[in-house]
Amino acid sequence: MTISIGIYGSLGRMGQAIASVAPSLGARIAGGADMMDDPGDIARKADVLVDFSAAAAIEPHLAAARAARTPIVIGTTGLSQRQHALIDDAARDIAVLQTGNTSLGVGLLARLVREAAARLGENWDIEIVEAHHRNKVDAPSGTAQMLGAAAAEGLGTTLAEAGVTDRAGTVSARAGGTIGLASVRGGAIIGDHMVIFAGDGERIELTHRADDRAIFARGAVQAALWLAGQPAGRYSMDQVLGV
Amino acid sequence: MTISIGIYGSLGRMGQAIASVAPSLGARIAGGADMMDDPGDIARKADVLVDFSAAAAIEPHLAAARAARTPIVIGTTGLSQRQHALIDDAARDIAVLQTGNTSLGVGLLARLVREAAARLGENWDIEIVEAHHRNKVDAPSGTAQMLGAAAAEGLGTTLAEAGVTDRAGTVSARAGGTIGLASVRGGAIIGDHMVIFAGDGERIELTHRADDRAIFARGAVQAALWLAGQPAGRYSMDQVLGV
Amino acid sequence: MTISIGIYGSLGRMGQAIASVAPSLGARIAGGADMMDDPGDIARKADVLVDFSAAAAIEPHLAAARAARTPIVIGTTGLSQRQHALIDDAARDIAVLQTGNTSLGVGLLARLVREAAARLGENWDIEIVEAHHRNKVDAPSGTAQMLGAAAAEGLGTTLAEAGVTDRAGTVSARAGGTIGLASVRGGAIIGDHMVIFAGDGERIELTHRADDRAIFARGAVQAALWLAGQPAGRYSMDQVLGV
Amino acid sequence: MTISIGIYGSLGRMGQAIASVAPSLGARIAGGADMMDDPGDIARKADVLVDFSAAAAIEPHLAAARAARTPIVIGTTGLSQRQHALIDDAARDIAVLQTGNTSLGVGLLARLVREAAARLGENWDIEIVEAHHRNKVDAPSGTAQMLGAAAAEGLGTTLAEAGVTDRAGTVSARAGGTIGLASVRGGAIIGDHMVIFAGDGERIELTHRADDRAIFARGAVQAALWLAGQPAGRYSMDQVLGV
Repeated sequence: MTISIGIYGSLGRMGQAIASVAPSLGARIAGGADMMDDPGDIARKADVLVDFSAAAAIEPHLAAARAARTPIVIGTTGLSQRQHALIDDAARDIAVLQTGNTSLGVGLLARLVREAAARLGENWDIEIVEAHHRNKVDAPSGTAQMLGAAAAEGLGTTLAEAGVTDRAGTVSARAGGTIGLASVRGGAIIGDHMVIFAGDGERIELTHRADDRAIFARGAVQAALWLAGQPAGRYSMDQVLGV
Repeated sequence: MTISIGIYGSLGRMGQAIASVAPSLGARIAGGADMMDDPGDIARKADVLVDFSAAAAIEPHLAAARAARTPIVIGTTGLSQRQHALIDDAARDIAVLQTGNTSLGVGLLARLVREAAARLGENWDIEIVEAHHRNKVDAPSGTAQMLGAAAAEGLGTTLAEAGVTDRAGTVSARAGGTIGLASVRGGAIIGDHMVIFAGDGERIELTHRADDRAIFARGAVQAALWLAGQPAGRYSMDQVLGV
Repeated sequence: MTISIGIYGSLGRMGQAIASVAPSLGARIAGGADMMDDPGDIARKADVLVDFSAAAAIEPHLAAARAARTPIVIGTTGLSQRQHALIDDAARDIAVLQTGNTSLGVGLLARLVREAAARLGENWDIEIVEAHHRNKVDAPSGTAQMLGAAAAEGLGTTLAEAGVTDRAGTVSARAGGTIGLASVRGGAIIGDHMVIFAGDGERIELTHRADDRAIFARGAVQAALWLAGQPAGRYSMDQVLGV
Repeated sequence: MTISIGIYGSLGRMGQAIASVAPSLGARIAGGADMMDDPGDIARKADVLVDFSAAAAIEPHLAAARAARTPIVIGTTGLSQRQHALIDDAARDIAVLQTGNTSLGVGLLARLVREAAARLGENWDIEIVEAHHRNKVDAPSGTAQMLGAAAAEGLGTTLAEAGVTDRAGTVSARAGGTIGLASVRGGAIIGDHMVIFAGDGERIELTHRADDRAIFARGAVQAALWLAGQPAGRYSMDQVLGV
C-alpha cells in the first residue's frame, strides 16, 4: 500500500519540491495545509506528516499530529527551546523526526563526526568550514551548527560551551577543546560543509557537498516513508539510513 | 611500570623512528633484533613486540612471540595469504595487531568508511583517490587498498570483487557496486587519501592527510602500548582509539 | 542593437539551453539549423553562429559561415586533426572560437594552468584529477585533456608526449616531466577538475567545479557576443574574459 | 662564482634554516648579523642580504644595504606604512625584494589570484580560507592578507576597502565586490591557503599547501640568488619564477 504524505507548508519552496518528488519515491501526497487551513484535516487523512512551514506554527501542527496519532517529520528551522520541549512531549505519543537538514548525507555525516570526535579526543582540534551562496543571510549555517553540536556531543560537551566563531584579530593561540566555525559566502553554492580534525602531524576531513537542492526534498520524503512505520519517540536523520 | 617494546627491524627507517619517539609516549625500548639476530631473546625480554622488518621474516617472529607469550604489532606490508593465516593462527595464543598503516587517523578513517558504505548502500558510488610523492613505486597505495577493503566490507563484498582501477580509455558508464581507485604521484606528498561517496545530488568525502611521517612511528608505539594489555586475538588500528 | 545568434544543433540539449538563456544575456536567437536544414540560410541571417551539432557536420557549417562572413563558436567535441585544420583555414577569413568547454571558468583555468606550468617548470610534478557523474562513458574527460594540453604547452611539450594515465600496477617511480591524468566517476557530479603542481615541500592546486550545467550555455552565448565583434582569426575561451 | 649571502637575524629560526639550505642551492653564507652587531660589515662583505630579523631593525639594515649598494631580500613581517616607504625609497638605489611569504608557490599563487580577479571581475565572489597550526597567534595570516591584496588589486581596489572578516552573526546577504577572509586553526598545519572565486554555477579554487617548512628558507635563498643580479627597484616573489 502506498504511504500518503500530508504537507504543512505545501505552498512553500520545500513543500512544492516534496510534492513533486514524492511519486518517484513511491509515496502519495494526501494533501497540504497552509496558514489559514485547519491542521487537523490533513493530520487525520495522511499516513505521515511533513512540516516545512514556520517555527511559529509548530505548536498547532504537533497538536494535530498527536490528536490524530500521525507521525511527523519536522524540517522547520529556528526552533526555540520551548518548541523543542513541545516536540519531546509529543514524542511520547507519536513518532517525531526533527532535523535542521533533511539530506541523508548530512545525517550520516553528523553521525560520523560524533563518532570521530569521541574516538579521537581532545588532542585533535575540530574546525568546521561551511560555504553557501551569496544570498544566504545568516552565518554560520544551521547545518554547521548541527555538525558542531554532533562534534561537541562526541567530546562530552556542548557547542554553546566549545564553539568559537570569529578569529580575525585574535592575538593568542587556539584554546584546547574548542570547536571553530568559519563561513564562506559566494556565488550559487548550494551548501558545502567540512569538519576538520587536526592532530599532530595528520588531519581527517569529513566533507558534505550538496550538488542539487532536490536532495532536501528527497530526504524529507525518505524520512517520512521511514517514520511512518516507527513507534512513538524522537528520531533523527541518521536513523533513516539503516544497515 | 613503563612498558618495554622490542623492535624487529630496529635498524630500518621505521624501527629507528619508533625507538626515537617511544620515550616521549611513555614507553621504553627493550632492544631490537635484525636479520642475523635470534628473535627469541627480545621476545622474552620485551612486554610487547613491534615488527617492521620484512614479510619473509614474519614466520620466525610470530613463532618467537608465541613461544614467549608476548603480544606483537605487525606493520610489515606485502603479506601473502599464507602469512595472514599464520597471524590468525598465532592470534589464538597471543594478541596480534596487524595493519598496513599505523597512523591512528587512517585507522579511524577505515572505520568511518566501512560504516558509511554500510549505511549509504549501493546507490552511492564509492571512489578512492590517493596521492603520494614522486618516488613511490607502487600504485594504488596499500592504504588505499585497505580503505577500499573497508568500503567493500561495508557493502558486503570484497575489494577483489568490486575494485576498479584504470579508467582511461573506457567507453562505458560506471558499473554499479564497483569501487574506483585512482592514484596521483608528485613532489614530496607524504600521503593523502580521499574516499568519495557520490550519491544523486550530494557527496560525502572522507579524507586523511599525513602532514608528518612521525605519525606512523607514534601510532605504532601507541598501538604497542594498547596491545600490551590485551588478551589473545587479532586486532586492528581502529580499536586502539577507544572512547 | 541586439546581436542575433544562429544555432547549429538547435534541437540538441545544448542548443536548447542556449536558446533559453540567450535573452537574459542580451542576445536574440536568429534561428536554428539541424541535420536536414541548409546551413547557409541561418549563416546569412545571424550575426554570429554557435555550433553544438556533431563533428561530422563541421565542414559544411564552416563553409556556410565563411561564405556568409559570419563568426562562429564551435563547441562540438571529438574533432579530428583534419577538422582542426579546416578550422585554421576558415580562421583566415572569419573569427572562429573553438573550445572543448564553454565555461568561462574552465577557460580561465586553462590559462592559469599554462602560466603556472611555464613558471614553475619541471621540478613541479603536474597531475590532473577529474570527477564526473556515473553515466559519463569516456575517460579522461575532454576538459581534463584540454587542461593537460595547456600544462604541456607551458612546459614546452605536448600532452601526447607527456601524458600518463593508468598508474595501477606500476612498479617504478614517477618519470619527470610527465603529466598524470586520473578519473573519478560517480553520482551526479557535473564536472570537477583539479590540476595539481607538486613541488618539493609545497603544492599548488588549481580547481574548477561546475555547480550548474547552465554555465556551459551561458558561456557559449557570452563567447558568441564577444566573437561577433572580432576580426578573422582563431580564438579560445580565455580571451572572452577581458581585463 | 658562488654568490654569497649575508643574513640579518642569523640566529633566528629562519636565519638558521637559510644557512643550512644555502649550500645545496649553490649559495655561500658570507656571515650573519644580529641585534648587537654593526649591520655595515656584512652589507659590504656579502653579494646579497637576507633580512629575517625584526620590523624595528629594518631602518638600519636598509641604510647599510644602501650604503654598500648590496641588494636585500626582506622577509620580516608586520611592517608599518613608514617602513614600506623606507623600502620604496631604498629601491631607488638598490634592488629590494620584500615579501610576506618566501615560498615560490605562494608567490606564483598571488600572481594567479591577481590575474583571475582581474579577468573574472565582480560577478565572481572572492573568498579566502587559510588554515594554520594551533599555536599561531594572529588571524588572518599575513599570507592570506597578501593574497587578499592581490585579489583586491585585480579588482582595482584595496583589501582595506574590500576585506570582510567576521561573518558569524551576520543577518544580511553578501555585499558585492567584497573579499572574505576566514581562518582555521588546529593541529600542526604548516599553512594552507585557498582563494575561492564563486560565480553563478561554477567555482575556481586556487590553493597552496605548505608540506614542509623548508620551502620558506629555500625560497628565500632562491630569491637572494635571483636578486643579486637585478638593477635597483622593488621586486616581489612572483618575479623570481622566470619563464
